[in-house]
Amino acid sequence: MSEFTARLVECRKSFPASEKVYVAGSRPDIRVPFRSVKLSRTVDYNGQVRSNEPVFLYDATGIYTDPEGVIDLAKGLPPLRLPWILERGDTEELPGASSAYRQLREGDKTLDAIRFPLNRKPRRAKPGRRVTQMRYARDGVITPEMEFVAIRENLGRMKGGAIGSHITPEFVRQEVASGRAVISANINHLEAEPMIIGRAFLVKINANIGNSALASSIEEEVEKMAWAIRWGADTVMDLSTGANIHETREWILRNAPVPIGTVPIYQALEKVDGRAEELTWEIFRDTLVEQCEQGVDYFTIHAGVRLAHVPLTVKRTTGIVSRGGSILAKWCLAHHRENFLYTHFDEICELLASYDVAFSLGDGLRPGSIADANDEAQFAELDTLGELTLRAWEQDCQVFIEGPGHVPMHLIKENMERQIKACHGAPFYTLGPLTTDVAPGYDHITSAIGAAMIGWMGTAMLCYVTPKEHLGLPTKKDVKDGVIAYKIAAHAADLAKGHPGARAWDDAMSKARFEFRWEDQFNLAMDPETAHSFHDEANAAKIAQGRLSQATYDAASSPGAVATEHQEGARAAHFCSMCGPRFCAMKMTEELRNYASAKNIDPVLAIEEGLKERAEEFSKAGAEIYVVGSQIEEQSSPSPEQ
Amino acid sequence: MSEFTARLVECRKSFPASEKVYVAGSRPDIRVPFRSVKLSRTVDYNGQVRSNEPVFLYDATGIYTDPEGVIDLAKGLPPLRLPWILERGDTEELPGASSAYRQLREGDKTLDAIRFPLNRKPRRAKPGRRVTQMRYARDGVITPEMEFVAIRENLGRMKGGAIGSHITPEFVRQEVASGRAVISANINHLEAEPMIIGRAFLVKINANIGNSALASSIEEEVEKMAWAIRWGADTVMDLSTGANIHETREWILRNAPVPIGTVPIYQALEKVDGRAEELTWEIFRDTLVEQCEQGVDYFTIHAGVRLAHVPLTVKRTTGIVSRGGSILAKWCLAHHRENFLYTHFDEICELLASYDVAFSLGDGLRPGSIADANDEAQFAELDTLGELTLRAWEQDCQVFIEGPGHVPMHLIKENMERQIKACHGAPFYTLGPLTTDVAPGYDHITSAIGAAMIGWMGTAMLCYVTPKEHLGLPTKKDVKDGVIAYKIAAHAADLAKGHPGARAWDDAMSKARFEFRWEDQFNLAMDPETAHSFHDEANAAKIAQGRLSQATYDAASSPGAVATEHQEGARAAHFCSMCGPRFCAMKMTEELRNYASAKNIDPVLAIEEGLKERAEEFSKAGAEIYVVGSQIEEQSSPSPEQ
Repeated sequence: MSEFTARLVECRKSFPASEKVYVAGSRPDIRVPFRSVKLSRTVDYNGQVRSNEPVFLYDATGIYTDPEGVIDLAKGLPPLRLPWILERGDTEELPGASSAYRQLREGDKTLDAIRFPLNRKPRRAKPGRRVTQMRYARDGVITPEMEFVAIRENLGRMKGGAIGSHITPEFVRQEVASGRAVISANINHLEAEPMIIGRAFLVKINANIGNSALASSIEEEVEKMAWAIRWGADTVMDLSTGANIHETREWILRNAPVPIGTVPIYQALEKVDGRAEELTWEIFRDTLVEQCEQGVDYFTIHAGVRLAHVPLTVKRTTGIVSRGGSILAKWCLAHHRENFLYTHFDEICELLASYDVAFSLGDGLRPGSIADANDEAQFAELDTLGELTLRAWEQDCQVFIEGPGHVPMHLIKENMERQIKACHGAPFYTLGPLTTDVAPGYDHITSAIGAAMIGWMGTAMLCYVTPKEHLGLPTKKDVKDGVIAYKIAAHAADLAKGHPGARAWDDAMSKARFEFRWEDQFNLAMDPETAHSFHDEANAAKIAQGRLSQATYDAASSPGAVATEHQEGARAAHFCSMCGPRFCAMKMTEELRNYASAKNIDPVLAIEEGLKERAEEFSKAGAEIYVVGSQIEEQSSPSPEQ
Repeated sequence: MSEFTARLVECRKSFPASEKVYVAGSRPDIRVPFRSVKLSRTVDYNGQVRSNEPVFLYDATGIYTDPEGVIDLAKGLPPLRLPWILERGDTEELPGASSAYRQLREGDKTLDAIRFPLNRKPRRAKPGRRVTQMRYARDGVITPEMEFVAIRENLGRMKGGAIGSHITPEFVRQEVASGRAVISANINHLEAEPMIIGRAFLVKINANIGNSALASSIEEEVEKMAWAIRWGADTVMDLSTGANIHETREWILRNAPVPIGTVPIYQALEKVDGRAEELTWEIFRDTLVEQCEQGVDYFTIHAGVRLAHVPLTVKRTTGIVSRGGSILAKWCLAHHRENFLYTHFDEICELLASYDVAFSLGDGLRPGSIADANDEAQFAELDTLGELTLRAWEQDCQVFIEGPGHVPMHLIKENMERQIKACHGAPFYTLGPLTTDVAPGYDHITSAIGAAMIGWMGTAMLCYVTPKEHLGLPTKKDVKDGVIAYKIAAHAADLAKGHPGARAWDDAMSKARFEFRWEDQFNLAMDPETAHSFHDEANAAKIAQGRLSQATYDAASSPGAVATEHQEGARAAHFCSMCGPRFCAMKMTEELRNYASAKNIDPVLAIEEGLKERAEEFSKAGAEIYVVGSQIEEQSSPSPEQ
């Protein structure tokens, strides 16, 4: 299995100037991970040195980015949550798998080569118990999972108490109890670091992996999971439909520090050789049990695609575009009967409550085009999802609601408002929405626009869209591009929602920018590698043209550059890669500020009262500084630093 | 000069399945260009063939994409507007350039090698005349320019009359007269195809070209202009600050079918060797005259950076980030005097009215970070810009207003509302805004989010941001990425605003998608090349794995594939590249629709009343169709088509 680990080298690299830190909770086994980005010092023009506090970033990468973390894919991640689950005493270890399908697979010797080596026995609720975070929350219990997410959402600023934020463990408990938030954490997914999905919290993003045929191998899928979380995916959905999806899923789950979601109907359909009309409740139920006992954290269940809704889609421009929706619509029509997921919904709830698998109530009738947005079919299904939410809550099941799709900007708000009302405040989880249909190849952008807006309005989790949407399956690069576009949308939404911790990141970046601390800008960037390489690319062109010397650039680029004696030149050189030394806008403001600081007066007063005096100084000193910059940048001779 | 033309090969290529068409106005010399995208036919399952109307797209590429168009960069584009200007009889040809600087350049033999060969004499208003589109509009005159843009904005559906749209030539006149819209069209830029910037019209985008030093050669800059308009830039700003900007600008203008904007203070600063404090009104005025007589269509003028505003920026996180703003703030402080652009504003108006150069009133104090958004400095300047708007309108000058910058989503609306109020409805022209600071390398995305939103709210033109923003100067690829991100934002805004023509594009795409007309999807895509190559990439992987045969793929990919006898297989093969044949969501809806059509009944009724009957048919015929798909896609043998 060593080749597995080798594939992951890129996923295991530390981020530059970043340290993996853990903030302790009220007990030693609550250790909440963050990425702490170390910043260089600020050096004023007068030589005064001030340090800059490291910036804590939310970190979904698990121990993949922890240099101390031991990753052996064949062993899986440490069972972080095991003690928490054991001490609750409401679950029992089963003698073996309950699912007939899994028993079959386990007895199949030909699968030995691809089987995950560790065979941990599944756990299930003791008879009559519901082991969901919602049940505990309703009982007034603050679980370790709740405390974990409270610390996590505070970005490390609150350590086990209620200091300086409303996101206390008790607040988390209340949100989970009310159904407004979900902690998606199957009792059989011991490896997952708890996270929360809810309107009052940071906006989360999901990345889909999986293949539609035989293309991807198991190691590729595990790598995709690790790659997606490296760039910020908070959950990962495994949408595989290939031959060995049971075994693939096991490898993913055992190595996933984030919740894993699936669409069980895809696998059920494989079991009937793709003939939707042959699906039965029994086959589907066995699939649910199979996946519950593996540790899948949430299931997309298309129970809202009712028989009566299907005709509403016929006059649409793009009909039914959800795979699950089409499977169930086909089943309903073939049998002329009500969707069996709808008729068996209470049994599904009972099952999910025994493992704490959350419902992601699927929007099988979501619009697939601008033309179909906010139509009758879509909202009829949404109303049904609201009804099902209440039925799930009756059994203490956690629920979130899937949403569209393709929606023009002016119709986005109605989606959010109707969802909150129809679904009683359950979290919303949307795919995009794409705000136009005309840009295949760029749908990460068409949809990041809609995702940012709906995230701001209250959507709790955004399902990413890659540039390959509508065109083919995403490559590794597409996965990264999709995740980053969505991380941008989610963070923009956090800022707009006024999340207390979100702004700190932007402010640190902007301060670094203003002070020309280039390395800090790269290190704080959502994608440090790309930021750095784009900057290098621009400077390489200048060096090639003799407009910047390699020595000056190297001096300016080294991490400590800002504090060296070449600081002045370094700053000018770097700043000029965009605007040129004559247009050094930010520099002037800094000069003014330092002038005021030297006089020990308020900077605004300094200028208002002392402008005249300053004017004289400025024309001397200021002009000189600019000439230095000009010499470095503007010469066209081959030896510019002379 | 042949190498110039050679560089442009890529910019001159026709778009696939596209034809350059011209819609005639009320006189033969009003010929409004469009790109007409030809679509293939729809073939129903029952074999019925229906044709699809070509889609007209707004086309800013000029004759670069016209196979009949003769491009010789050394001759420039045809002087389209000359007859219109001549027949108004309110301008006169000057004996030579009025600008002292231009006279100097013209006398410099060393510049012969880079000088544009054609020396057309400049025109100016006759004494006492104001030759602006606003003046004509106020006089009740519908100019050819106004009629041109009316046809253009209707996307060719209205030919010289008021049929089916409110965008009549008279409506255009009213909008221009009121100042709510601008037709930026210098009387010396005869080559430009008229376009309009205003809240009631399609949202426009601007791309910046130019360099901060000696990097770019003249041919590179001309190529960048042609490249930017190829992907959809409606105007181009030349922000060059290098040595030969006068000559470069001449080449750009003579070959630009779109309005060209500049920031004249950049060139003025070059004339005083970069020493802002040495700038004078006389130097600046000569620069304006120089550029007015070349044909620049709009000027960014930072007249709103008043002395009293500068102290308001001192406590900011990122101070002053506008180049022009910093130059003028520096001048104000160095002299402790009011901004000379403000004190000479009426003289500037008089000048601009003599050539019909529009004001792009610059936001020199725009926020450069989320932290500084919507602050006192920004809005103090905006109020001044409103005051200046009225002064410009008094002299019949056309005006639009520049806006930020960096603004979190929840503060965007305030920007739009205050701008409309403070600036009396003059069009808004914003840079982004970027909705977060933390993603350098992806600022085309951080800002497309803000741009789409503010476009929807009423911003008339969006200034693009490339992925290199904050990192370096953009490459050709960055220019394309920036333009496309902004074209997406502008189109999403048009949809949300309910522009009558905008939706037709999305609907045509979605219909092609639903009918698996792949070539049509590529041809309709904002970037056909990328859409096609992404799709090919995904299929190449499948062919390599033996999951799709080259023959099947070729048959399916050819333009007429949809109408061939292999249609069925082709469709399945293509559809399956995403979802696999078992998940053919859209196909089922089409089957239902065709069923209803065959029975000659309403599709909704067909299902509601005939579901039972349909159910039986479905389990036979439907299942069979799916099996065909499965055979093509799912086999793992090396000869899948057997």
